Amino acid sequence: MTLTLTAFERSPDGGRGLARDMRVRWALEEAGQPHAVRLVSFDALKQPAHLALNPFGQIPTLEDEGLVLFESGAIVLHLAERHAGLLPEAPDARARAISWLFAALNTVEPPILELFAARVLERDQPWAEDRLPLVRDRIRTRLAPLSARLATGEWLDGGFTVGDLMMVSVLLRLRPSGLLDADPSLAAYVARGEARPAYQRAFAAQKAVFDAQASPGA
Amino acid sequence: MTLTLTAFERSPDGGRGLARDMRVRWALEEAGQPHAVRLVSFDALKQPAHLALNPFGQIPTLEDEGLVLFESGAIVLHLAERHAGLLPEAPDARARAISWLFAALNTVEPPILELFAARVLERDQPWAEDRLPLVRDRIRTRLAPLSARLATGEWLDGGFTVGDLMMVSVLLRLRPSGLLDADPSLAAYVARGEARPAYQRAFAAQKAVFDAQASPGA
Repeated sequence: MTLTLTAFERSPDGGRGLARDMRVRWALEEAGQPHAVRLVSFDALKQPAHLALNPFGQIPTLEDEGLVLFESGAIVLHLAERHAGLLPEAPDARARAISWLFAALNTVEPPILELFAARVLERDQPWAEDRLPLVRDRIRTRLAPLSARLATGEWLDGGFTVGDLMMVSVLLRLRPSGLLDADPSLAAYVARGEARPAYQRAFAAQKAVFDAQASPGA
Repeated sequence: MTLTLTAFERSPDGGRGLARDMRVRWALEEAGQPHAVRLVSFDALKQPAHLALNPFGQIPTLEDEGLVLFESGAIVLHLAERHAGLLPEAPDARARAISWLFAALNTVEPPILELFAARVLERDQPWAEDRLPLVRDRIRTRLAPLSARLATGEWLDGGFTVGDLMMVSVLLRLRPSGLLDADPSLAAYVARGEARPAYQRAFAAQKAVFDAQASPGA
């Protein structure tokens, strides 16, 4: 079986592991699944060959034999269903872990994506500075209940699951803003995620891609 | 078996079926599952009894025997896994349908949520008018590939699945902006979803709640 992932040829995050291929790399490492990575340039993302894998022209995609999947959430859930280590076996605990996976992607990440848009895409707009506090407040509204929950538990619901993998990945995108480290409970949670050997292997693999592309001899 | 859903006591959408309980109601109707609905006031959403069901203080939640789930995506997937009618049986087609479910929630919905924030939460800000075109452009970037795909198929990938249920639900939130009806391919797709008997039963049920609350005798 060959699993093939796509990732940015040159990630705009500077090798900090914030692009969405990292979520899939981490899941593959937790599941102990060897895999190939195909790098895609920004230009190639919008070409027919890649659009056949992902109609929105994004990374990551996963090819698993004849199956092609897109959306990091769907790929991570697919891996979690097929390999041990990312979902509990008990049906109720499994369903709750999937609730957290969706919470990361549809409740916590949207305001974080707004902050990215505000800081990067709208950086030169006249409202850029004045608007930032509103966007940051919208994020804090989501972080507060998460922080309270994690004050009493190592992970979101029992042991580490695909829900934690995605929540940690989403929260990591907040680190540059200072909002993550401003909350000791959340900062410690994310640090527990980063300390996992599978995370570290995945991080090193994506960093090696960035370093190879960025080196003068490349 | 009793399935119990939570919904807004008084939905801010005026009974147009745009709140997230509608997604779960629709899935329950597609799956032919009887269910109870518990209405929750805005005040009660932030009280401990509801926060025990959903730490973010949102609707919907689903109680299924002893199991409590939150996040409309997770609930709809849970129902689709347990009842016929929302996921194909073939494993690859099933995984692709789940890709579309995540695409609706994490690729298409975030810019639509931004538009809501821009039009409602930031309505009185000095940048409100000037900023709207940027947000609308971000939505169009997501709609274009979706529209192209739906120009040649009735649903996103073969027959109707949970991916279509969620994509139609997300796109419906665009109708007030005019962006949906500006695209005939997407407008026809959403209309096909709305024409399904299960959608119509779910819509009528949520509308009845709104009408009862809004009537002078209530």
